[in-house]
Amino acid sequence: MNTKVDRIKKDIEELAKFNSSNDGGLTRFSLTEEDRMARKYLKEQLEKLDVKIYEDNAGTIFARREGTDPDAPVIMIGSHFDSVKNGGNFDGPAGVIMALEIFRALEDNKVKTRYPLEFVAMIEEEGGRFGSGVFGSRAMAGLVDFEQLERNKDKDGISMAQAFRDFGFEPEKIAEAKRNREDVKAFIELHIEQGPILENEGKDLGIVDFIVGINEFKVQVNGRPDHAGTTPMDMRADALGVASKVVAEIDSYPVPENNGTVATVGVLEIKPGAANIVPAQAIFTVDIRSKDEASISNVKKKILDKLDALTKDTDVTYTVTEMLDVKPVKMNEEMVELFRESAEGKGFSYRHMLSGAGHDAMVMAAVTEVGLIFVPSKDGRSHCKEEWTDYDQLQKGIELIYDTILKLGEAK
Amino acid sequence: MNTKVDRIKKDIEELAKFNSSNDGGLTRFSLTEEDRMARKYLKEQLEKLDVKIYEDNAGTIFARREGTDPDAPVIMIGSHFDSVKNGGNFDGPAGVIMALEIFRALEDNKVKTRYPLEFVAMIEEEGGRFGSGVFGSRAMAGLVDFEQLERNKDKDGISMAQAFRDFGFEPEKIAEAKRNREDVKAFIELHIEQGPILENEGKDLGIVDFIVGINEFKVQVNGRPDHAGTTPMDMRADALGVASKVVAEIDSYPVPENNGTVATVGVLEIKPGAANIVPAQAIFTVDIRSKDEASISNVKKKILDKLDALTKDTDVTYTVTEMLDVKPVKMNEEMVELFRESAEGKGFSYRHMLSGAGHDAMVMAAVTEVGLIFVPSKDGRSHCKEEWTDYDQLQKGIELIYDTILKLGEAK
Repeated sequence: MNTKVDRIKKDIEELAKFNSSNDGGLTRFSLTEEDRMARKYLKEQLEKLDVKIYEDNAGTIFARREGTDPDAPVIMIGSHFDSVKNGGNFDGPAGVIMALEIFRALEDNKVKTRYPLEFVAMIEEEGGRFGSGVFGSRAMAGLVDFEQLERNKDKDGISMAQAFRDFGFEPEKIAEAKRNREDVKAFIELHIEQGPILENEGKDLGIVDFIVGINEFKVQVNGRPDHAGTTPMDMRADALGVASKVVAEIDSYPVPENNGTVATVGVLEIKPGAANIVPAQAIFTVDIRSKDEASISNVKKKILDKLDALTKDTDVTYTVTEMLDVKPVKMNEEMVELFRESAEGKGFSYRHMLSGAGHDAMVMAAVTEVGLIFVPSKDGRSHCKEEWTDYDQLQKGIELIYDTILKLGEAK
Repeated sequence: MNTKVDRIKKDIEELAKFNSSNDGGLTRFSLTEEDRMARKYLKEQLEKLDVKIYEDNAGTIFARREGTDPDAPVIMIGSHFDSVKNGGNFDGPAGVIMALEIFRALEDNKVKTRYPLEFVAMIEEEGGRFGSGVFGSRAMAGLVDFEQLERNKDKDGISMAQAFRDFGFEPEKIAEAKRNREDVKAFIELHIEQGPILENEGKDLGIVDFIVGINEFKVQVNGRPDHAGTTPMDMRADALGVASKVVAEIDSYPVPENNGTVATVGVLEIKPGAANIVPAQAIFTVDIRSKDEASISNVKKKILDKLDALTKDTDVTYTVTEMLDVKPVKMNEEMVELFRESAEGKGFSYRHMLSGAGHDAMVMAAVTEVGLIFVPSKDGRSHCKEEWTDYDQLQKGIELIYDTILKLGEAK
């Protein structure tokens, strides 16, 4: 191994101390005192290396390690270091520490690469404080402007613009965070899987082929609030009767796609919500994710067809409201091939997989070629205090990317 | 007609004025200023008649019209005059005004009956203020004690005992409200249907054969809160997946019983309730009503069998909590026959039917023989400001009971 597991462990444990949560798990929101302390820790580690540290006005920390070719575009590696409320120690930091440890290992081994490398540590990926997720990468993709920073506020009414200003950043210059395609050769991220597949299959690593597209919509079914005792079954307009018949089938709709497509009903609310009143209204969300846009369309069509069939010639009606529509992102094929070669060379077990969650890598695909590696999540858990990845599993992911960087960066 | 529709209309409209609601519909909770005003109005009308007015310590107003036989048991007629929050003008008052108008018509026609008659106007049938429904009839059945009055409190923390005391009643003597079987010949109630059947079939009246039994229970389904994007369909323990498959079938289970059995899921709540998290918990209520206890058992068994089948060999479990179990009450057959004769004699169209809601008559069945007549509810609506029965439809119900009283009371 080129990397050292004790350094990885120490970094993760130190970052976990910068935590505002009193009631379990890790809470490190963006541009808070905990952010400031984590930022200070990361910079202190980077200052020990031969790198140039700087920050953009989206709060992202960069550390640039020059290559031998002064005109070559940069290879970026990293992830985010903010967390959800009461989250875990690995979602985000695992990828930041990957970048830090690779930089240390490169220096330990006196490796020079042709391409310059940049350590990248972003904030507000989770949107925990300002509701504005994958923020650092969106800024690099040129998708954030100053007006958004003034508009996005935390629960105390503090705008992102104000919070950035209080931190010493210049939010008016946010547009300067944009990176140009010709200046960036690649972005490589490591993240915990946040799902059970790698653990279940006993695999060391997941090489992500696709980050799934997401279509989320809300269905409102409207019926009539009849009395549960006095209204015969055939005279009802039961909103939940219709909603439940659709929801009951939704988990079967992705199966024939046979490509990892998933569909979830995570919210279902009914009104008036009394045991002796037939529900007049049922509202549910549907979240469909797939690497294939056609599969998302197929599943959605089955849902709408079922709703049409159930409400035809009845007193029940429905409406659909779009909530989110994100296209699937295909990972760079050459990078996937490099990952595969490295995994095989190092004897790590792996599988190709989808990323079912959105990540900064998804947004960075608008800027450059991206690669994404997953490490196993114990019991598939994340966004909770039980979130865990064994340090030697994390190290394998870091080793894989180290090896890939040597090839991609043309190490000498 | 022996009764007068203009008097009926005026009474309903006058009672509707005693209303605390500012935001639509009628709200007249028990032992409030509105109760006091309605009580005063009713007593003023009764004072014009040759009756003895008294109240029991459950707040029920009685007016006794003596019969020719001093030792004969009493025939009671009436209903309740409290309301739900934002309810309508007819649920309760229709039956109270039935009794008032019959007393007036008997006096107009100088009718003497062998059996004494009592006008009955009860409160807290809805349980709107103290959550203690069918209260007046429960007191007559000897089912209320002083401790309950101290325990039952309104939302401001005022106990029923205190509220009765403030109204001039003696709550310590609540047990004296009990009526003995040998002193009561019958209790006859008129109520709005609160359902759509009479209107749909164009019938004047419903003669109730049974008040349904009710079994209400709560099902809690327990799964696991997995990530909606990263958890494959076949690795989920989706609590809503199971709950929806049961709920989707529940409306079909009563149909083969073919006896008016109904089943309703009126509450369904899921946790954590986020669009991108597979539901870890789903709680729903089931309310089954039937005239036949076996039908209730059959429907319930299908639900539990379905839950067993869906959760067998999965990570999903369920628990069931009983909420309410009330046996069906069969109406007195002779009374039903008298109603039928009267309806046919007067040329009113009618149908036999179930009462799907509980009524004071259901409780009074523990004291005496009971009869219950329904009048149509426009659009089946009740417990809302749209609650409506045409006054001439209400009059037909009152005429039917008037005629029945002549026979049952042995008028001369």
